[in-house]
Amino acid sequence: MAAIRVGGAIRPLSSVPTRIALSSAKQSAVSSVRMASSFYSGEPEGPVLKTEIPGPKSKEVIAKLDKVFDTRSLNMLADYTQSTGNYIVDPDGNKLLDVYAQIASIPIGYNNPALKKVAESPEMVSSIINRPALGNFPSHDWAEILETGILKVAPPGLNQVFTAMAGSDANETAYKAAFMWRRQKERGGPAVEFTEEELESSMNNQSPGASQLSILSFKTAFHGRLFGSLSTTRSKPIHKMDIPAFDWPQATFPQLKYPLEEHAEENAKAEADSLAEVEHLIKNYHVPPCAVIVEPIQSEGGDNHASPDFFRKLREITKKHEVLLIVDEVQTGVGATGKFWAHEHWDLPSPPDMVTFSKKAQTAGYYFGDPSLRPNKPYRQFNTWMGDPARALLFRGIIDEVQRLGLVEHTAKVGEYLYGKLEALASKYPGQIQNLRGKGQGTFIAFDNPNRDEFLKKAKKFGINIGGSGTSAVRLRPMLIFEQQHADILLAAVEKIISS
Amino acid sequence: MAAIRVGGAIRPLSSVPTRIALSSAKQSAVSSVRMASSFYSGEPEGPVLKTEIPGPKSKEVIAKLDKVFDTRSLNMLADYTQSTGNYIVDPDGNKLLDVYAQIASIPIGYNNPALKKVAESPEMVSSIINRPALGNFPSHDWAEILETGILKVAPPGLNQVFTAMAGSDANETAYKAAFMWRRQKERGGPAVEFTEEELESSMNNQSPGASQLSILSFKTAFHGRLFGSLSTTRSKPIHKMDIPAFDWPQATFPQLKYPLEEHAEENAKAEADSLAEVEHLIKNYHVPPCAVIVEPIQSEGGDNHASPDFFRKLREITKKHEVLLIVDEVQTGVGATGKFWAHEHWDLPSPPDMVTFSKKAQTAGYYFGDPSLRPNKPYRQFNTWMGDPARALLFRGIIDEVQRLGLVEHTAKVGEYLYGKLEALASKYPGQIQNLRGKGQGTFIAFDNPNRDEFLKKAKKFGINIGGSGTSAVRLRPMLIFEQQHADILLAAVEKIISS
Repeated sequence: MAAIRVGGAIRPLSSVPTRIALSSAKQSAVSSVRMASSFYSGEPEGPVLKTEIPGPKSKEVIAKLDKVFDTRSLNMLADYTQSTGNYIVDPDGNKLLDVYAQIASIPIGYNNPALKKVAESPEMVSSIINRPALGNFPSHDWAEILETGILKVAPPGLNQVFTAMAGSDANETAYKAAFMWRRQKERGGPAVEFTEEELESSMNNQSPGASQLSILSFKTAFHGRLFGSLSTTRSKPIHKMDIPAFDWPQATFPQLKYPLEEHAEENAKAEADSLAEVEHLIKNYHVPPCAVIVEPIQSEGGDNHASPDFFRKLREITKKHEVLLIVDEVQTGVGATGKFWAHEHWDLPSPPDMVTFSKKAQTAGYYFGDPSLRPNKPYRQFNTWMGDPARALLFRGIIDEVQRLGLVEHTAKVGEYLYGKLEALASKYPGQIQNLRGKGQGTFIAFDNPNRDEFLKKAKKFGINIGGSGTSAVRLRPMLIFEQQHADILLAAVEKIISS
Repeated sequence: MAAIRVGGAIRPLSSVPTRIALSSAKQSAVSSVRMASSFYSGEPEGPVLKTEIPGPKSKEVIAKLDKVFDTRSLNMLADYTQSTGNYIVDPDGNKLLDVYAQIASIPIGYNNPALKKVAESPEMVSSIINRPALGNFPSHDWAEILETGILKVAPPGLNQVFTAMAGSDANETAYKAAFMWRRQKERGGPAVEFTEEELESSMNNQSPGASQLSILSFKTAFHGRLFGSLSTTRSKPIHKMDIPAFDWPQATFPQLKYPLEEHAEENAKAEADSLAEVEHLIKNYHVPPCAVIVEPIQSEGGDNHASPDFFRKLREITKKHEVLLIVDEVQTGVGATGKFWAHEHWDLPSPPDMVTFSKKAQTAGYYFGDPSLRPNKPYRQFNTWMGDPARALLFRGIIDEVQRLGLVEHTAKVGEYLYGKLEALASKYPGQIQNLRGKGQGTFIAFDNPNRDEFLKKAKKFGINIGGSGTSAVRLRPMLIFEQQHADILLAAVEKIISS
């Protein structure tokens, strides 16, 4: 007989409420945001639990999968054909409200009907089966695909793009652009030829051909896991252990205290100290940085925020020392913070030099504006595929839906609602919801919990798929179609997890 | 009026033969291989030239594209909706026989009808719009997709896969597996925990946490252009200039002389010297190698071959010193050499430890067999997407077609025919076709030409899209549906290019 494990006890399914409906919370929903399921139809009214997770069908498949694929990081098996909107469904029929969304990478819901149309279009089919080497043989409509898609949402002040495959290589190609830019400047401009010594030493991985320059990143940052990006990632030892790394500098990221209003002075000092350290490293590090990379909100590293003022000053310092500023919007980009790009919250005096993106964009790359960031010769920034037109078409479809439905503004509003309710919960359970953060940042909200890993596991028993970051943060990464009704379900579940 | 530039002179279109039909060559075709266009219908009978390349329509689009995307490496604009089988078509209606195939990455032709079905399938649509974080939330059918696709063609002796996005990250994740494997051995096995010193130093990019180990590669090798892979790439300065690199060792790749029969002794010595250098570096390099990576045929670096005996001994040396052997089949894999994997030509005493793949597979990753290549803890080898189920479905479709039509065996035969004819041409034009190589390696054939760049450009005027490698090689990289009739068109064009 099918059974469900709730709070440690195994009970037959019939005695378990299979729908975690939250009628009281629902009634309190006001119309300042859109009403329940207003974007697309087909979602369940709430989570549905039919078995423990993983259930018997999932277990069977996991055992099979493990023979050929490492399943130790497996969180939950999914049946994507049955998943809809904000709900992820597993092979045992469990339907969970998904506020993790494939590590923050699903933008507008599972089986989105508008994206289904894009995926079924002749353009997509052609892109899938005729994948070009974009740098050599772009298609006749590539400029148009870029202009009506990726470039339509280029951050203010930036108007060009180098496309890539995922966040890691987006960052690494941005780093390469930075190294080439800096050495070109040092050489005296794009017309100056490489010396014989440079040509020869580059082939031996030695300077001066292989430059002795660095990328400065912040402690607890995450920028990817390939060799260059991993050298700038400072999240956890498990990400870095045993992998050779470049001797590149790291500055302390300001560790803000919450609530912000109560720690204004300390926090301002933390930010000033961090900026002083950045400037010191730029001026003195023995492998000179040619760029600083920063996340608007350190995501993998624990949802660490800094103020707009911090970022404005970071822009000033990098400008002053002619060091590039790369903003890594891989996780923060595409609307979740209530702006299309999180760095739009900062009101910068001049734009970042490069902005990298991936995840919710479903494609990847870096935006830039300064033409001198194009290397002086062709084939210096090049690879076989250089991105993927199929995924560029998908991003265009995502952009169209985000704009048609006003999902960025919507997310700003829902985030405000959600944050307010979490603040109230934090007052009620101050030991369980600590350092609530992300006010005014859409649904990009997090809090610390003393038994975080336990919290995340328990959430499934209450119908919620939720993720963590850093060592103690519960991070909310709902999709852009997350509405007030979903927030209410989530809030009720959070309270149950805490008090159970 | 539309015009075409042939051999430097601009002539009105009407005076130019618009079809480069090669009836005499065609008549000589014998039936030892399949007859013309036997795989799919819809191809033109031969190349069609309507304008110079780029023509007026292409020029207009290129100018537009250049504003937002670096076009200096652009070879030819394509209209993929009009391209078919072995023919790439541009917006001006030019139809070229494509023996470059998107830098060797199109396996079974443009707009392949079987792949079109795969691309239109509900499974593909779901994969496109519901992209999972594979390590955390694989789909219920992921094991089956792997087993009926990627793993169905796993190289002999290997039965597991780590999926990736493209060749560079396939190689880099293989390197990471190698570093973790070696350090685990040094530590005393998977159960031994990391020390405090390792944990702390890893976060500072310092040893012992960041290992002081290396990957040994060969001179003129190409393994990708991200920071770790680029440190093993030794093709050209333009690929490496200004990019920081790891201090990793390189051994000389044997530089064989052609024809092989006439230089047996010298070539054997070159291979012995290379192997001695490998062994010396493994034993003595100041940053000890934990793996050797090698291409079966160095492709980007100039189509450099070595004998099966060389590779068997390389396997022996690496085994003897407990260093992993990674075979990079990114360009050689998936049939073009007349075996599904090029290293199957070698009759190795034991399989490579890892085999990396991408390009014609349209997905990427590394195969392995030894379970100890799975790191001792989850999340050590991990990233958000970890590959792409949509592209895994496509590879499955490719495999099905390759097997249904016997395209590997077919390519072996067509390659034999093509090589024989090129040998005859080389006798006729010894100064123009030098160091012909790739005998018995399917259509993976190359030769040197003293004016190689000019040769490649001229080829377009004779209806052929063809690529180069290294400094002087013309490299043939036709698709697996390249037939004798296409070989005849190519051969006639080569003779015209040479003699024009």
